[in-house]
Amino acid sequence: MSTAAVLPPDPPLGTALGVVAGSGRPGPSRIVAPVGTAYVDVGTLAAAQDGPHPSLLGEPDLDGLLAAGRSAWREVWEWLTSWLTDPERLAPYALPQAGVVPVLPFTVADYVDFYACEQHATNASEIFRPGAGLVPNWKHLPVGYHGRAGTVQVSGSPVIRPTGQRGPGDLGPTRRLDFEAELGFVLGGASTGPVAVGDALDHVFGVVLLNDWSARDVQAWESRPLGPLLGKSFATSVSAWITPLDELAGAWVDPPARDPEPLPYLLGPTDRGLDITIEVRLNGERISTPPAGELYWTSAQLVTHLTTNGAPIRPGDLLGSGTVSGARRDQRGCLLEMTWGGRDDFALADGTTRIWLNDGDEVSIVASAPRPDGSRVSLGEVRGTVTP
Amino acid sequence: MSTAAVLPPDPPLGTALGVVAGSGRPGPSRIVAPVGTAYVDVGTLAAAQDGPHPSLLGEPDLDGLLAAGRSAWREVWEWLTSWLTDPERLAPYALPQAGVVPVLPFTVADYVDFYACEQHATNASEIFRPGAGLVPNWKHLPVGYHGRAGTVQVSGSPVIRPTGQRGPGDLGPTRRLDFEAELGFVLGGASTGPVAVGDALDHVFGVVLLNDWSARDVQAWESRPLGPLLGKSFATSVSAWITPLDELAGAWVDPPARDPEPLPYLLGPTDRGLDITIEVRLNGERISTPPAGELYWTSAQLVTHLTTNGAPIRPGDLLGSGTVSGARRDQRGCLLEMTWGGRDDFALADGTTRIWLNDGDEVSIVASAPRPDGSRVSLGEVRGTVTP
Repeated sequence: MSTAAVLPPDPPLGTALGVVAGSGRPGPSRIVAPVGTAYVDVGTLAAAQDGPHPSLLGEPDLDGLLAAGRSAWREVWEWLTSWLTDPERLAPYALPQAGVVPVLPFTVADYVDFYACEQHATNASEIFRPGAGLVPNWKHLPVGYHGRAGTVQVSGSPVIRPTGQRGPGDLGPTRRLDFEAELGFVLGGASTGPVAVGDALDHVFGVVLLNDWSARDVQAWESRPLGPLLGKSFATSVSAWITPLDELAGAWVDPPARDPEPLPYLLGPTDRGLDITIEVRLNGERISTPPAGELYWTSAQLVTHLTTNGAPIRPGDLLGSGTVSGARRDQRGCLLEMTWGGRDDFALADGTTRIWLNDGDEVSIVASAPRPDGSRVSLGEVRGTVTP
Repeated sequence: MSTAAVLPPDPPLGTALGVVAGSGRPGPSRIVAPVGTAYVDVGTLAAAQDGPHPSLLGEPDLDGLLAAGRSAWREVWEWLTSWLTDPERLAPYALPQAGVVPVLPFTVADYVDFYACEQHATNASEIFRPGAGLVPNWKHLPVGYHGRAGTVQVSGSPVIRPTGQRGPGDLGPTRRLDFEAELGFVLGGASTGPVAVGDALDHVFGVVLLNDWSARDVQAWESRPLGPLLGKSFATSVSAWITPLDELAGAWVDPPARDPEPLPYLLGPTDRGLDITIEVRLNGERISTPPAGELYWTSAQLVTHLTTNGAPIRPGDLLGSGTVSGARRDQRGCLLEMTWGGRDDFALADGTTRIWLNDGDEVSIVASAPRPDGSRVSLGEVRGTVTP
């Protein structure tokens, strides 16, 4: 493993939207786009320069824009990218990064975490139920569960080691704290019934990086028969910057071959993956590079499946992909898999070893994806430090 | 089974708060208390008659009051009940029930559905895993999972039979639509860390009746290994009226004996049950009377356990008890148990039989609890009709 960073930690020009607070200007927070070492105040820019939807862009969070739907998103993005190519014109609208703090950019409505990576599901199955293979439903539908919307937090927020029942009669701080490297899909454009797979991407505003922190001992003890609860609900971190789907036009790839073929409602031209390469860093050292382009179930399928029963999408719904893992050990997206359920420790460059996370450990997840011109777009970073 | 109703369907004087829309007065909706055939406009009453927290009570929903916490709730309730004992003085503040519609009275933050009834868990286990007994964790902690906050709906809203995967390669409308009779606990008074069991009831504003509609075929196929998702997420109905905990002072009962004894963090004087008798009606006929006073895990324990890991309570968090069932067949709280997994049908007074719900079936759940003076307080009704 290497200490060299292969991916840029900060989003370059024009790739993302977020919200910052504490700018010293009126209002508690404002929508911005990061540009170099500054943040462009998008709402003020739109109001002053005849941009589209200035009132939505002047709001203190992205909730209104998420509700407005795909056509508004595209208008805003086309206008904004045309401005962002000219940093000099942006100077009057730039907020210095010093003194402002990125905050959670939208109100999370419902948070659903899927289990969409075959390699991860296969590994987890083998660790917990050796020889049993994938559960019978896994290749027929995207398995998932609702998580806790109220503990989704922005990158940089501390992760307090949670207390919980680690087994019968055993209450205490988790001894098996883990991360899970995931993509998060931020939804908008409210629906009123099942969303056809062909329309599903109209409800995906963009992508965040997501760390589904997990207390494995708590999770293992509590999960039968209704799934994880407190082993997951203490914290879920997301990147401060949402990369709009429009910015990822060069990243679409064919999904993996499926056998058996999914039901027709899950198939169509929008059923494509996003070739996003993730990098997980532990205390600055790269420990894994999970390949999100290999996810078995794609974002369009997650949206469509979730609404099969008529459940409406609300703006701010957040879908996690589940842990992203590749076939190689250095592509696994969580310590559960990297240490094979705690059996094998691994060495860090500083001479220490890990099975689970220690207090003080910082986990950073960064990612990038190809642009149509061959350059790469950064998806920013989600970062958190374990505190006692 | 009998067609006679043993419980009053409407809340009598002074027992509940809710929100109605369409009153013809300014504002989209307003907080009311049902009194006889009218609704008392509580916000206008508070503003005109020097009541406590008039601005909170003048809001279009109960969100602000839920956030204000226990001391505000008590002030409001003491003041309001003193007024509600004198209907004549209330006349100027009464809205006629004609022309107004009860709406969901608060914004659901996170919805967690527990599995707190031993009889229900035992029956479900025996139906799905004959001879296996309760899962090993069940008597150590309140098992539960997050449900979908976005599909919690007010009593009277239709329940559209959901489509879903009923098995491998089989998509269609559920053939096994069920109800689940539950209590719902509406939380408020934000917390910032674990809530001690002694403080837990300070976060319980009141009780609603809750129907956790379930598509059993979808649920059975999708639930491994992460629990229910689409089999539950299409609709969860709650009563329009929240009965404040202060109104249930006469309903506290000792919880059932526990073996093994739960860990100390789950024990204390607040660990008491609510002696609420539920009545389930199918097309007007009483088919079951589940006894909520027998729930193994109590409301204080649910709140405390849920926050063990530090997850904050947000105002509007909703906790379901899980299906309430008694030992007798006519005390079972869902068709899954009443028909023993679909094995045994049962006859209705109209000569028809049921295993699962038909289109057009109306399920109504009403409940009452004892007052200190020996009379009974009604908890209103949660009602829904199955539509194709």
